[in-house]
Amino acid sequence: MRRAQQQLAATATATRPRFTASLLTHAAATATPLLRPFTTTTQARSSTPFQPTRRSLSLMAALAAASLLAAGTSYFAQESKAQPATTSETDSALAAKFFSRDEVRKHTSKEKRVWVTKGDGVYDITEFVDVHPGGERILLAAGYSIDPFWAIFSVHNSAETLELLEEYRIGNLLPKDDDPSYNALKDDTKAITQALERLFKNDPVRDPQLMTRSERPCNAETPPEKLTDDFVTPNNLFFVRNHLPVPEMDAHVEIEFDAPWMPDTVKVSLEDLKRKYEHLDVMTTLQCAGNRRKEMHDAKPVKGLQWTQGAISNAVWTGVPLKKVIEDVCGPIPKEYEDKLQHVHFHGAEGYGASIPIAKALDPRGDVLITFKMNGTELPRDHGGPVRALVPGHVAARSVKWVSKITLAEDESESHWQRRDYKGFGPSKTLEESKYEDSLSIQEMPVQSCITVPQPGQVVDVNQRAVDSRDEKSVAVKGYAWSGGGRGIVRVDVSGDGGKTWIDAKLRRPGQQQGREWAWTHWEANVPIPENSLNGGKGSVEIVCKAVDTSYNEQPEKMESVYNVRGVLVSAWHRVKVEGILKAMTDRTSNGNTNQ
Amino acid sequence: MRRAQQQLAATATATRPRFTASLLTHAAATATPLLRPFTTTTQARSSTPFQPTRRSLSLMAALAAASLLAAGTSYFAQESKAQPATTSETDSALAAKFFSRDEVRKHTSKEKRVWVTKGDGVYDITEFVDVHPGGERILLAAGYSIDPFWAIFSVHNSAETLELLEEYRIGNLLPKDDDPSYNALKDDTKAITQALERLFKNDPVRDPQLMTRSERPCNAETPPEKLTDDFVTPNNLFFVRNHLPVPEMDAHVEIEFDAPWMPDTVKVSLEDLKRKYEHLDVMTTLQCAGNRRKEMHDAKPVKGLQWTQGAISNAVWTGVPLKKVIEDVCGPIPKEYEDKLQHVHFHGAEGYGASIPIAKALDPRGDVLITFKMNGTELPRDHGGPVRALVPGHVAARSVKWVSKITLAEDESESHWQRRDYKGFGPSKTLEESKYEDSLSIQEMPVQSCITVPQPGQVVDVNQRAVDSRDEKSVAVKGYAWSGGGRGIVRVDVSGDGGKTWIDAKLRRPGQQQGREWAWTHWEANVPIPENSLNGGKGSVEIVCKAVDTSYNEQPEKMESVYNVRGVLVSAWHRVKVEGILKAMTDRTSNGNTNQ
Repeated sequence: MRRAQQQLAATATATRPRFTASLLTHAAATATPLLRPFTTTTQARSSTPFQPTRRSLSLMAALAAASLLAAGTSYFAQESKAQPATTSETDSALAAKFFSRDEVRKHTSKEKRVWVTKGDGVYDITEFVDVHPGGERILLAAGYSIDPFWAIFSVHNSAETLELLEEYRIGNLLPKDDDPSYNALKDDTKAITQALERLFKNDPVRDPQLMTRSERPCNAETPPEKLTDDFVTPNNLFFVRNHLPVPEMDAHVEIEFDAPWMPDTVKVSLEDLKRKYEHLDVMTTLQCAGNRRKEMHDAKPVKGLQWTQGAISNAVWTGVPLKKVIEDVCGPIPKEYEDKLQHVHFHGAEGYGASIPIAKALDPRGDVLITFKMNGTELPRDHGGPVRALVPGHVAARSVKWVSKITLAEDESESHWQRRDYKGFGPSKTLEESKYEDSLSIQEMPVQSCITVPQPGQVVDVNQRAVDSRDEKSVAVKGYAWSGGGRGIVRVDVSGDGGKTWIDAKLRRPGQQQGREWAWTHWEANVPIPENSLNGGKGSVEIVCKAVDTSYNEQPEKMESVYNVRGVLVSAWHRVKVEGILKAMTDRTSNGNTNQ
Repeated sequence: MRRAQQQLAATATATRPRFTASLLTHAAATATPLLRPFTTTTQARSSTPFQPTRRSLSLMAALAAASLLAAGTSYFAQESKAQPATTSETDSALAAKFFSRDEVRKHTSKEKRVWVTKGDGVYDITEFVDVHPGGERILLAAGYSIDPFWAIFSVHNSAETLELLEEYRIGNLLPKDDDPSYNALKDDTKAITQALERLFKNDPVRDPQLMTRSERPCNAETPPEKLTDDFVTPNNLFFVRNHLPVPEMDAHVEIEFDAPWMPDTVKVSLEDLKRKYEHLDVMTTLQCAGNRRKEMHDAKPVKGLQWTQGAISNAVWTGVPLKKVIEDVCGPIPKEYEDKLQHVHFHGAEGYGASIPIAKALDPRGDVLITFKMNGTELPRDHGGPVRALVPGHVAARSVKWVSKITLAEDESESHWQRRDYKGFGPSKTLEESKYEDSLSIQEMPVQSCITVPQPGQVVDVNQRAVDSRDEKSVAVKGYAWSGGGRGIVRVDVSGDGGKTWIDAKLRRPGQQQGREWAWTHWEANVPIPENSLNGGKGSVEIVCKAVDTSYNEQPEKMESVYNVRGVLVSAWHRVKVEGILKAMTDRTSNGNTNQ
């Protein structure tokens, strides 16, 4: 694979066309959001001659790598075919080439050449089809605009991908008034919808209780009020985060292993893994990096799925220890690789990929599994079935579903989702200023907590008691708290006066220690609200919570100070405003908090 | 040791006098602060009959354990002597017994009995002398009030210690008007000062640049502006945090090892450790749990040394890996102890003690050392010379100086400093509500950062440049950032407008990873301040910083929300107000931040 990447990179450099790269500074910002698949983007063109960049080369390598997986063929078999179109035409000459929509529609196969449009650009991607990471799925767009596809497969939304595409540009669409075929062909909605539906036709049926944030690919959260109903989330209510269509996989799947010193990759069947290694049950909470993004978006717009607080769930996962499998299959790490080998890559069968630090993978207390059961049943397809990597304490994005290859490597995964997504940035950075290459991939997550009961806007009882001549008013509250890296939760502070005074919530799992606390805790509290509030019998009440983990890190107060353009790592205090109605209690017992 | 503890606890239960325990709810709150050694505390007495508590028993055990170390004698040799005074007198009868100050002064040895006073109480502690954790140093107070001693040895400031003391009460001091010796003996200042000076007479000479927060024991911080002069803090400027007098130790010291399955403890000489094991250099920043306490105190009063930002320093420590020494000396952990064995205790030769989780001690990537060199020279006495435990990534309080015994155990250290100090509490908890037994001992510290240049109140240049028709004003700022648990620093956000907008500081050590980043990073930035500020040529400017670690935890904004009565874990944004003076720059270069 490394050799293939190097060669492809070399080929790309040698035969790269001289055509202008479209290095749009606003490329990603103007890309269409995921939920508006039929909006097209407009695109500016720069007249700077194309220069090779480190990024474009690594992207080429990544594309090739992913392609091998997705298409299931060897790079070397394709190499002779992979001859990017070269041209001696100048930018202005190209810009002067115009094609009708009708003409574009004719180029739908390798024989007839494969053309697509993006915005007003026309591209001959025939030579790219074989190295496309998504395989021949690219042909679904042949003759059409790729914009609706890119809107769904958001991996394409980067300056690098646009730059790569520009290498295949052959001209522009005729202005609509000059194009006799415009009126007949302007509306491709139906054809494209059908094409997209075909891509997702094998996705599993989901529980209608899940709150869908995008249909294709499926992204759906656990209903917030259900999060604390069960300590272990039922499989059907476990949040779904898919980046691509759910692949159809044989139960007799194999996982391929690779390490720099192995002469050949080694394939091990899932059956063998199940037979040879001890089965471990690890209870682990998985949280999406974008959980609570909507709250951040409401404070200041961010890009991405509008998760509320349900992109987190907890399950018991059964699997075999990755550490032992690696030790057996890849053998001991040769001395010369001990310091260099820093990452373990997981390749998903559907094209997704990510990596984790090798120290986590090989830590006997890290509990990284190759998992095949979830809450005692076969791993559901939506959650990676038949086989998934499970990385406790890390962002869910590293627990790669449908894992088909595991690679030990010196560098991080070249995957888009490792290099160009799931990273944090400073609160004042714009999208253009947020440089992925300067930022650390999210692995361990920061401390988090949420109120699940009551929900915002809900009408709730405010219990009123006369205690020691004071008028005690309180609201019953429930929630969850979790921290990354196996750090336990030592305290959840809850306030009924906006954060002026706090009580300790009662933790479902008190006495948590450092290091291996992979599961969340649930908590509850009867939160006092100010004595002089709700004197009219009802009124607005705001409940706030913040958690503290075993390293005594705690959640920051404001959304503004943790803001980042990608809307990840949303860890500010959770605030819920409800309508309170006073309910006088006859007993004189205290409010029942035992952990104050 | 375990047997001895159990027997002592049993003895304490069997022979405990029926005298009222003084379970002051305000005991610790009214105890004198460390810097006011000659203030005496007053003490209320409850009439509740004494009931044994789990705490008093564990305290007895702890006192006994510490005593063995400090006094260097075996408990069994003392057991027959340790007969607490019993009495059949009732509380009221005792309360009616009065002694003159003159009478108390006569009881200064075991032969004449050892009496001390505390507040108005008179105590015969003859039988306690041999089990006193601080050994016979207790005799320094014989015939006198113990208040000034307890003020210095703040370990005594707990309800449990007061409870224990009450078991030895024999009556009260005569009211001063009734005591003919009052005027002659009321002022013990000189005698007590001399006694205290004797305790500390062997403390090393310190660099006068250190900023002393208490003299006896010595607690002194690195001058803040020196913190970022050197990446590795010079030994003479490394902050000093001592709990007791610095012991005088032979260079040919031995360390004793104990584990539940070992038939006898094993002593290993420092020379042997140095000879047998590989020497490792580990660069580690140590930070006191109370670093920045003064800032919290200024927001709302807390108890403890008034550290500013210099209770943190960085050094290269040379030592042998504790993991390997334990494996050799204590042997493999027997199967039946694998799950139970959770802690490693470090006993300091001077009486201090603490423990860490065994997972940290045995983690090959944990880098816990038995250390004997600091920045290439012999470990200075003030920093634990000749030998110290070094626990990278944990609060400095676990890197026990003058380590003389290392014990593998099921439970945490029974030391006062492990059980009754160095813990966090909720922001609204009073001292009485802060229950140590319900809180987790601080081990890993949360993410931290401070501005070291400029210092508060300093007059600084505000560089003014015309850039693209805007008036760019900025202040040059430097600081440090660190996080516990080996988490690196990924970003330091700095603001010149109170936290509305932020820039990334330039990190001295960019590209930090998760897991083994024990050393701090230094950072610098030219922080923009609002264009419309300082229009009169000068004015007040506030600089704010906050750091983000590799788990993307970040510092909370306000002191109020991380407040705790002990003033530990002070991790709120660091704010520095300075007086800015505009200084027009002639060049048109940007402000030089490379990492924005």
